[in-house]
Amino acid sequence: MIFRQLFDHQSSTFSYLLAERIGGEAMIIDPVLENTEQYVRLIEELDLKLVLAVDTHIHADHVTALGSLRQRTECATAMGAMTRSECVSVQFNEGDKLRIDQLSMDVLYTPGHTSDSYSFRMADRVFTGDTMLIRGTGRTDFQNGDPAAQYDSLFGKLLKLPDATLVYPAHDYNGMTVSTIGEEKRHSPRLQVADKQAYVDLMNGLVLEDPKLMDVAVPSNRRCGLKAVA
Amino acid sequence: MIFRQLFDHQSSTFSYLLAERIGGEAMIIDPVLENTEQYVRLIEELDLKLVLAVDTHIHADHVTALGSLRQRTECATAMGAMTRSECVSVQFNEGDKLRIDQLSMDVLYTPGHTSDSYSFRMADRVFTGDTMLIRGTGRTDFQNGDPAAQYDSLFGKLLKLPDATLVYPAHDYNGMTVSTIGEEKRHSPRLQVADKQAYVDLMNGLVLEDPKLMDVAVPSNRRCGLKAVA
Repeated sequence: MIFRQLFDHQSSTFSYLLAERIGGEAMIIDPVLENTEQYVRLIEELDLKLVLAVDTHIHADHVTALGSLRQRTECATAMGAMTRSECVSVQFNEGDKLRIDQLSMDVLYTPGHTSDSYSFRMADRVFTGDTMLIRGTGRTDFQNGDPAAQYDSLFGKLLKLPDATLVYPAHDYNGMTVSTIGEEKRHSPRLQVADKQAYVDLMNGLVLEDPKLMDVAVPSNRRCGLKAVA
Repeated sequence: MIFRQLFDHQSSTFSYLLAERIGGEAMIIDPVLENTEQYVRLIEELDLKLVLAVDTHIHADHVTALGSLRQRTECATAMGAMTRSECVSVQFNEGDKLRIDQLSMDVLYTPGHTSDSYSFRMADRVFTGDTMLIRGTGRTDFQNGDPAAQYDSLFGKLLKLPDATLVYPAHDYNGMTVSTIGEEKRHSPRLQVADKQAYVDLMNGLVLEDPKLMDVAVPSNRRCGLKAVA
């Protein structure tokens, strides 16, 4: 398998390029608009054909490259059905599979950070978007965020995956690149709460500034990162 | 295998934590002083015993954590024999092996960026320090840097590894995290030169500022990052 974790320094976003083999089909998860040319060059250098660009949810801190990649490569674009975005070619739901060549990902609906947050699970790893971060969880105070729903996504779905499952989040701000379900279960401060109410109280007690790009990024991302047509 | 690529945002340095298994021995490559506590916490959380901290060479852009990690964990410290550092417990040479549990790395002497630059090769990957970067190579204009020697290290050693070998460098400034020997052979601009003289001319033609921390980092790193004793 070809697997590339790519880091956007501006927004501390991780994007992921996956393919089964050189010369084969590729998928990219959570690509960032400003890095479109870097992705296209890398995809060309690896002799891949980008067939699918996917967002785990509508991001508030960067503009997505879904639209720009579709324009450059004719790839399909996908977001979850709960995003209700009209720009994508595929809307996925819990239980769906996303496939490139012989690689397959199971879609998990993991709301909480936003009402449209999904995770993608492969055999040995899970892409958790902003639902589970390394030693953290995504904020729940905007975009229909809901700490009780996030608790259910975390404790009812993600933490029930095997302990050895690798965790690849959409962001990291501390120089970490990967974790495991077992590690997060034991060592993530926010996952040591006694019950759902304690988690809700913890998340509701956070005082956070709005992301700088939020007013631009959210409406833009509903259009796959493309400018509105006049 | 447990494998953690860790990123220092300040100096864009990659450090690598390796272990065969949870509960086993660990090695860290190119650790950064300011992140010592983060490493110690992660090592504890993974139930590892740090037995070896290694630098690929004397860095000029950050201070090493070799000394601080030795103080915190009683690990052995290692640098290459060409570093002539008196602070380390192990000095390695080309052909030596570095071992933790059943994991083994072969030492390659790959001078050019500095006269004390080494690479470490495992079965499927190579840690290239500043000798080979992703789509780049380390500068050769200080610390006994030598573009002709670097050409020999690149073309005579690293590029002779199997194409599928994963390349893990000591830095990246562009959001990339890994490459392969085959990719660098085909797509690294500096590796497309006609011959050694062309590479020497290319490297000698670069106009680069000194690293900001150079005057502090180099002498400090010769002491394993510890303060001089009065």
